[in-house]
This record gives sequence, structure tokens and C-alpha cells, in this order.
Amino acid sequence: MDEYRNFTLTVAERITQDRISELAKRKDLDIVMALQSYDELVKIMNVIQDRILVWVKERAPSLLEEKKDFEKVIELIYSQSSEPDYVRKMAELYLKSRECRSAVEKQIGDLMEETAPNVAAVIGPILGARLISKVGSLARLASLPASTIQILGAEKALFRALRKKGKPPKHGIIFQHPWVHGSPRKIRGKIARLLASKIAVAARVDHFSGRFIGEEIKKELEDKVKALRSGAG
Amino acid sequence: MDEYRNFTLTVAERITQDRISELAKRKDLDIVMALQSYDELVKIMNVIQDRILVWVKERAPSLLEEKKDFEKVIELIYSQSSEPDYVRKMAELYLKSRECRSAVEKQIGDLMEETAPNVAAVIGPILGARLISKVGSLARLASLPASTIQILGAEKALFRALRKKGKPPKHGIIFQHPWVHGSPRKIRGKIARLLASKIAVAARVDHFSGRFIGEEIKKELEDKVKALRSGAG
Repeated sequence: MDEYRNFTLTVAERITQDRISELAKRKDLDIVMALQSYDELVKIMNVIQDRILVWVKERAPSLLEEKKDFEKVIELIYSQSSEPDYVRKMAELYLKSRECRSAVEKQIGDLMEETAPNVAAVIGPILGARLISKVGSLARLASLPASTIQILGAEKALFRALRKKGKPPKHGIIFQHPWVHGSPRKIRGKIARLLASKIAVAARVDHFSGRFIGEEIKKELEDKVKALRSGAG
Repeated sequence: MDEYRNFTLTVAERITQDRISELAKRKDLDIVMALQSYDELVKIMNVIQDRILVWVKERAPSLLEEKKDFEKVIELIYSQSSEPDYVRKMAELYLKSRECRSAVEKQIGDLMEETAPNVAAVIGPILGARLISKVGSLARLASLPASTIQILGAEKALFRALRKKGKPPKHGIIFQHPWVHGSPRKIRGKIARLLASKIAVAARVDHFSGRFIGEEIKKELEDKVKALRSGAG
């Protein structure tokens, strides 16, 4: 009887685990899909901006002098009726794309809050989503050493370095974080290593325990970055 | 006195000509800019469609069985509130892009009507605009032999043929016209040559006289295409 009980318990556990990992996979995929949409929207906005810019430079260059901020120029074109209909419609499309990008950002924020709140707290929802998308799942991110997380997204530079025996890259995706690219060049490597180690911790806590310690990790990180920056200054 | 008169007349003529060619250049540039916007919009629509399709396949595959036409699926997603907010916003963005593409199409139609009505009548406003964009101006298009017009846009294939001594391409941009790609392979070359010769005539009439003989050219062309097709059938 005990044997049977144990067996059913094991089966029940396996089913629960499968169900959890199935759910996790679903959420990971939602993150990947939303991030792809986000990236496409950014590209779409750039393309529309370029087309409007070409037109403005040729046909209404005074608008560029009037407003320094090109987003403001676009808003102006949309609100004025003196421009050709299609140019106004392009301006409207740009503003709609921006709205849509905000909606995707919100969605990524919500998904990261549910799935990987610690990672989101440490490096932000978008970059966190980018790391998860890069490796395919939170489970995989949680299994990676900090040194690998540090250079995720810099695979080309890594293989080039290995081939030509040059210096390996110091950062990949995480370079996009202001703490890294906003720091003096000589301490960027250190900051990238620090950030990657905290992301590794955050990903593991997210995957294995679900506790939220993101704020503490972030605080600790901020103090260390400040110390490094003042030392470098 | 006669000499002076002649001189002022010549100067006046030159000014008028410069002014006309300046205006023509302005319109040519408007055509080029509008066509670039058109092409970008088509790409944008494809990108948004792909992103929505990925999402639908994963999360709402039943929609695909329900509606065969993917544009209808997008309209459905937009009108339903059960999907995530960002997916609905992507659907809205698709519909807005389609509206915008119609506005650009109309603009290209209007510009071609003013600048190159004969070319527009023979091959359609979009393909006509594409030919003008390719060579940079109506003036340049009007100066090209039909054999060059026939393979405009197939430069890669042409140079490959010259390098490897293969067969030269039979058509470039004009391949996109249904009379060419919709005809049996063995008469496509003939139809392309015919079409190119009529475009050459149309471009010259547009550039040098401005008379409208587009309908006659088109009628003649249609008859010949029908004869060729029935001969080939």
C-alpha cells in the first residue's frame, strides 16, 4: 500500500512539475514573442521617421529649424492640414507605432513581473526579456555562469577573438544598460562583470525560489557601481 | 535692336525651360519619395503580419481555421477584446498601415496623372513610378531605348549574364506587370519587349508633348498581348 501511495505521489509530483514547466515555457514564449514585436516596432518607427525626414528636408525644411526634436516635428505634421494627405498619414502611423510600442513595453513589464521579477529589478524588464529571449528560457538563463551571461549577445566578437587570439568581448546585451555604456571605458569591464554576476543570482532566485530579493540586489549593485565610478573619476 | 530682342527672347526661353525642368524635377522627386514610402509601408505590413501570425499560431490557432484570409483574422483580432492589449494594438497598426498605403497609392496616382499620364495608362501608376524612380526622372526614362527599359531593375542578372556569357534577362521591373508574369513562360520575353516599346513611346510623349494618347497605346497593346496569348495557348 505504501508502495502504491509513493508511486501515486511520485506521479502526482511529476504531473505538477511538468505542468509548472509547461506553464513556465508558455510564459517564456510570451516574453520572446512580445520582445520580437517590440524590436520590430522600434525598427518600424525608425523607417517611418526616415521617410518623413526625407520629405521634410525636401519640402518643409523650415519645420526642422522650428523644432529641434524630430518627434515634435512629426506631431506638428500630423496636426497640420497643409501637408499632403499621405505624409500626415505617415505621421499618424508613427504616433500609432509609438502607442503600440508602449503597450508592448507594458506587456513585457507584466510578463517579467510574473516570471522573472528579480531579473527585471536588476537590469530592467526589456533587457531582462532580451537575455531570456537570447537563451530561450528563464530555466536556461538560471543555469548559465555569470561569465556567459556577461557576453550573451556578443557571440560574433567572442568567436572572432578566439579565432584571431584577440581580446574577448567584455559585454554583450548588458552593454545596453546605462551603468555599462554610461561608465568610463576603463571600468566598463568591471561593471559588466558585476552586473552579470547579479543577474545570474537574480535568475536563479526567480527560477528556483520565486522569492523577491530584487531590490536588495539592485541596492548592493548601485553602491558598488558608485564606488567603482568614484574610484575611476 | 533685333539682336537685343533676340537675346532677351533667348534668355526668357532659357528661364522658362529651366523653370519647367525645375518643376519637373520637383515632381519627379515627389514621385520617388512617395514610392519609397509605399515600398516601406508594404514591408512594414509584412513585418506586422508575421508578428501577429507567430502569436496567433501559438495562442489562438483556431482563428486560422475559422478564417482563411489572414487579413480577416487581423480584423477579427482588432475587433475582439479577448486578446492581449498589445496584440490588438499590433492589429490596429496593421489596419492603419493599410490605410496609409492607400493614401500613398492615391498620391502616386495623382502625381503620375500630372507628370506621366501616358506611362501610367500603359503600365499602371505604381510600376510607372517605379521605372521613373529607378532612373531618377521622367526625362531620363524618355531618353532610354526600349531595350533598356525592358530590363530596368534586372541589372544584377544582366551583369551576371555578361560575366558568365549566359542568357541576358528578359525583364526587370516590368515583370511585375500581370501581362508579363501572368503569361506562359515562352511568350513572356515577347510580351516584355512589346510592353517596353510602348512604355518608351509613352514616356517620350509625356516628356516632350504632354498629349494624352495612353488609352490608344493601351488598347493596341492589349490586342497584341491577346493575339500572342491565344497563339501560345
